[in-house]
Amino acid sequence: MAARRRTDTHLVTRVDRRSARRGPDELIVEEPMSIQLDGHRVATTMRTPGNDFELAVGFCHGDGVLHGAPVTGVRYCADGAASDSEFNVVTVDTGGRAPVPTPRLGNTTSSCGVCGNEAIDELCTWLAPLPATTPIPLPVLAGLPDAAMPGQTLFAATGAVHAAAVFDAAGRVLLVREDVGRHNAVDKVVGRMLLDRSLPATGLGLYVSGRASFELVQKAWAAGFGTLVAVSAPTSLAVQTARRAGLRLVGFTRADGLNVYAPERIGDDDAWGSLAEPT
Amino acid sequence: MAARRRTDTHLVTRVDRRSARRGPDELIVEEPMSIQLDGHRVATTMRTPGNDFELAVGFCHGDGVLHGAPVTGVRYCADGAASDSEFNVVTVDTGGRAPVPTPRLGNTTSSCGVCGNEAIDELCTWLAPLPATTPIPLPVLAGLPDAAMPGQTLFAATGAVHAAAVFDAAGRVLLVREDVGRHNAVDKVVGRMLLDRSLPATGLGLYVSGRASFELVQKAWAAGFGTLVAVSAPTSLAVQTARRAGLRLVGFTRADGLNVYAPERIGDDDAWGSLAEPT
Repeated sequence: MAARRRTDTHLVTRVDRRSARRGPDELIVEEPMSIQLDGHRVATTMRTPGNDFELAVGFCHGDGVLHGAPVTGVRYCADGAASDSEFNVVTVDTGGRAPVPTPRLGNTTSSCGVCGNEAIDELCTWLAPLPATTPIPLPVLAGLPDAAMPGQTLFAATGAVHAAAVFDAAGRVLLVREDVGRHNAVDKVVGRMLLDRSLPATGLGLYVSGRASFELVQKAWAAGFGTLVAVSAPTSLAVQTARRAGLRLVGFTRADGLNVYAPERIGDDDAWGSLAEPT
Repeated sequence: MAARRRTDTHLVTRVDRRSARRGPDELIVEEPMSIQLDGHRVATTMRTPGNDFELAVGFCHGDGVLHGAPVTGVRYCADGAASDSEFNVVTVDTGGRAPVPTPRLGNTTSSCGVCGNEAIDELCTWLAPLPATTPIPLPVLAGLPDAAMPGQTLFAATGAVHAAAVFDAAGRVLLVREDVGRHNAVDKVVGRMLLDRSLPATGLGLYVSGRASFELVQKAWAAGFGTLVAVSAPTSLAVQTARRAGLRLVGFTRADGLNVYAPERIGDDDAWGSLAEPT
């Protein structure tokens, strides 16, 4: 299997008031990838190549199409000519144990990856509220942007990708994935954990390098993460969904502070530290 | 027709080393919207309510499903109970002059809004290269982030939306739209111009407040913009597509400099100004 390039070099002209200089620039690759379940089409996504099997498995998990069926295999669906495009179709196998995915009318186009579901509820009704766990201390959450950065190698090279990372209660970053699509980065993380049989992610947290949309909350919920930390703002629906899930949602996360969006009220023992004075 | 909220207020706990304070925070609204063409489902997108008709029309234009048919009407497809959700289905009418949109197998989930098309080529083959026009001076392009900001009212309120703006050769911002999805913001701009019968956008430029993905280039191309200015990085496929289209693509745009990604080489008369020394 050929290693797929994740970045590509183009000549660019850098222009400012004094000069115009031509030189190479490293850009992130985006390519379409179709995901199949037991040979049935599930979705097509624009993604950065790499960790494609994780992406396919994680997507199927978050979308609910597995219905609890175990994944027995994942493979590229090469159908003929040995071209690059044969690596743009991935089939997740359950040996037919998962129901045939329902053909959905029409397409979905979404910054947040919600994928053809007629209603938001459809993506959430199969999910039970998360079990109550000991909250991860807020200073730990505040440290995540710095802690995750060393794993964001594509971001360092291109400045144009989102990252998702798994962390534990001590703030240790266990896994980082990057992609042009924020939801793909989360799917890759979840897919890796599913393949490693480490779902549900009870007691662990999910970090995302951008905003928190509905579907990131939904994917975190489906994977069993009790905490979602976003660098930027959540949407209104993301907050509503996190509260429904019993998922702790934190946004605008900086080393010296953050916003807790869910739950609506934090406990006295859950403030920053001994100096904190909740009001 | 009820005015739809674009932002929503939630109680948030702002925490730092010294304190934890509860207070209201204004968050951007995201809701699903289904787009129909003559009653046939075309797509579903997560979007910020507002300018829904523009979004529906602009999406149909960029996706190529209009096939040049004139839009004779746009309406909410209320089907029964007078609930908010009746405003989440929009039908674009061409009186049946557009072909019935092809049912596409499976869904697409994408940060970049490419919508179920099996191949990238499919989205581009109906597009002819753009006509050559006089390039808009680079200092004009460099001024766009500042020029567009006054129109980004939702961003000012929430910090969580993308903007798209139309500008002319003098750098005047003619139109700004915002949305949780970057592609939706572009669709709204293009839809407005189509409804105003001001497409193709020859001689005008499109500004986007984030990255430039393939589909933003494709949508700009479909609308006839000769220039696409992004605040952040383009993807590799965006650069390839812009060069194929004959579209000028600029990224990492700041008041004092920018990167020209397409064309591959700029003309001597196209540098910043008299001080510029192309090498």
